[in-house]
Amino acid sequence: MAPHAIAIIGQGSPDSGRAIDDAEECGRLLARRGVTVVTGGLGGVMAAASRGAKSEGGLVVAVLPGIDPGVANPHADVVVCTGSGEGRNLAVVASARAAIAIGGGWGTLSEIGLAKRIGRGLVLLGTWHVGAPDGWDPGDAPLLATSAQDAVEIAVGL
Amino acid sequence: MAPHAIAIIGQGSPDSGRAIDDAEECGRLLARRGVTVVTGGLGGVMAAASRGAKSEGGLVVAVLPGIDPGVANPHADVVVCTGSGEGRNLAVVASARAAIAIGGGWGTLSEIGLAKRIGRGLVLLGTWHVGAPDGWDPGDAPLLATSAQDAVEIAVGL
Amino acid sequence: MAPHAIAIIGQGSPDSGRAIDDAEECGRLLARRGVTVVTGGLGGVMAAASRGAKSEGGLVVAVLPGIDPGVANPHADVVVCTGSGEGRNLAVVASARAAIAIGGGWGTLSEIGLAKRIGRGLVLLGTWHVGAPDGWDPGDAPLLATSAQDAVEIAVGL
Amino acid sequence: MAPHAIAIIGQGSPDSGRAIDDAEECGRLLARRGVTVVTGGLGGVMAAASRGAKSEGGLVVAVLPGIDPGVANPHADVVVCTGSGEGRNLAVVASARAAIAIGGGWGTLSEIGLAKRIGRGLVLLGTWHVGAPDGWDPGDAPLLATSAQDAVEIAVGL
Repeated sequence: MAPHAIAIIGQGSPDSGRAIDDAEECGRLLARRGVTVVTGGLGGVMAAASRGAKSEGGLVVAVLPGIDPGVANPHADVVVCTGSGEGRNLAVVASARAAIAIGGGWGTLSEIGLAKRIGRGLVLLGTWHVGAPDGWDPGDAPLLATSAQDAVEIAVGL
Repeated sequence: MAPHAIAIIGQGSPDSGRAIDDAEECGRLLARRGVTVVTGGLGGVMAAASRGAKSEGGLVVAVLPGIDPGVANPHADVVVCTGSGEGRNLAVVASARAAIAIGGGWGTLSEIGLAKRIGRGLVLLGTWHVGAPDGWDPGDAPLLATSAQDAVEIAVGL
Repeated sequence: MAPHAIAIIGQGSPDSGRAIDDAEECGRLLARRGVTVVTGGLGGVMAAASRGAKSEGGLVVAVLPGIDPGVANPHADVVVCTGSGEGRNLAVVASARAAIAIGGGWGTLSEIGLAKRIGRGLVLLGTWHVGAPDGWDPGDAPLLATSAQDAVEIAVGL
Repeated sequence: MAPHAIAIIGQGSPDSGRAIDDAEECGRLLARRGVTVVTGGLGGVMAAASRGAKSEGGLVVAVLPGIDPGVANPHADVVVCTGSGEGRNLAVVASARAAIAIGGGWGTLSEIGLAKRIGRGLVLLGTWHVGAPDGWDPGDAPLLATSAQDAVEIAVGL
């Protein structure tokens, strides 16, 4: 049976800053626990998380929007080309038990919504603040983490 | 050439309340202007917007997640079965020049993200509050509307 | 409730020849019967079928692969941008009660397979010959038509 | 960088017979060459190919239609849930350099079309016979193999 997988979702650029450091650390910590890391396969947070996981010998999966595997960052063991465009955001979060969202990006916001929509666990680390409208009950709220280590602890425990 | 289309996105239930009234009014106002109304084709906000548009003789398009047209609400002139599951959220917003988001729903949040990700205009009416993380520039923010009439004015002007 | 829809699937080029004449005639005949015509929204067979239907005042739906409505042929009343790439082939056949396949194209072959996979009626007119392997029962075979008129009669009767 | 991957596409049932034996042997032979095996993740040919590859220590990827990883056969190292329904057929062939089609199934026929549509190499082993219509040039035809060993030799050489 496939090992547990956790998705790290986040902005595709820039390639440095707090979000990048957090993503790389999350990748490392997940790999050390034997958790497969799934990302959207491109740059920024996606590349950093993949690089971190690979540096610890983890299994890394890139789930790309298009059909050209050549655009994936170089840290993935498996490159899946969905051909679904931004529709691949659903595949990223659906392919994991839980997702850790890091940093900005409108695509990241869409993945936050999709992860909750399909009932996946979700941990937020320095990312979008989302507030439901009055009179609508969002059910279980996403969980807030204060550090990469905290985010991984929460996600693995879900 | 196809007429302009505007998407109304929002929660699939319940079927009454402020969001439902707003959605129905937006549908009516868009139809009166000759704008095609696109929704996700199910209940709640989607049904209300479609019903409103249909009551004014508008052209109404339902973009469903699955392959069974029988689950669409009864107000659509055209029922598109994407077969893409929640991936159809992309098709809903991509098929319109702009989207008006009303009420709650995690799927609605994903559509807010997707609309901005692909550069569509977006108007928020009594829906999610979204705040970008520190250090990430979301570019043009979605526009806030205070009433159905206001939302339609803004969306049509985009 | 939405009117019945039939998809016309076929090659995106060239724009003249037997397949194009057949597609345009199918579009005309379907529109005269009040049937909505669904196509993949681009050139060749798709444009011809749409042009034929429009010339008779029919309702025409274009289901595009990408997110840019500007690439649609000019004959559609409704342009749906799935953003699913070639995955939109599923949406084309799923959005109709039955499909008429005309001419060549590898994408057309995929739509033939998808239409049968999801249980839609399928009529073949001057298109791929497909033969199931020994030992596998394909169930109901697609129906062969000998002319545009024949194809429409069969499709409408399914 | 990710290792080369080859997809094995084919019917989801039954679970015995010539197609199943061929799929399992293809899986074994690909794994021995260090090639990642990608399938649609369900039963029949998909399970057999995965079981064969796993028995030789290969890396096996399951690309599922839905969002429930629990329906995957038990032989995959990585389970990707596309949530795209039959649209995942595109992801299966797009995620590999080449595909080997074995046995029947309408979904298999759709994958044959999709693989060629997006320019992937394609080898046919005891599967659909497809003949293009008169007057349409399909370009490079799929390659016919006479045995599992032959299919793998051809696919790896593409």
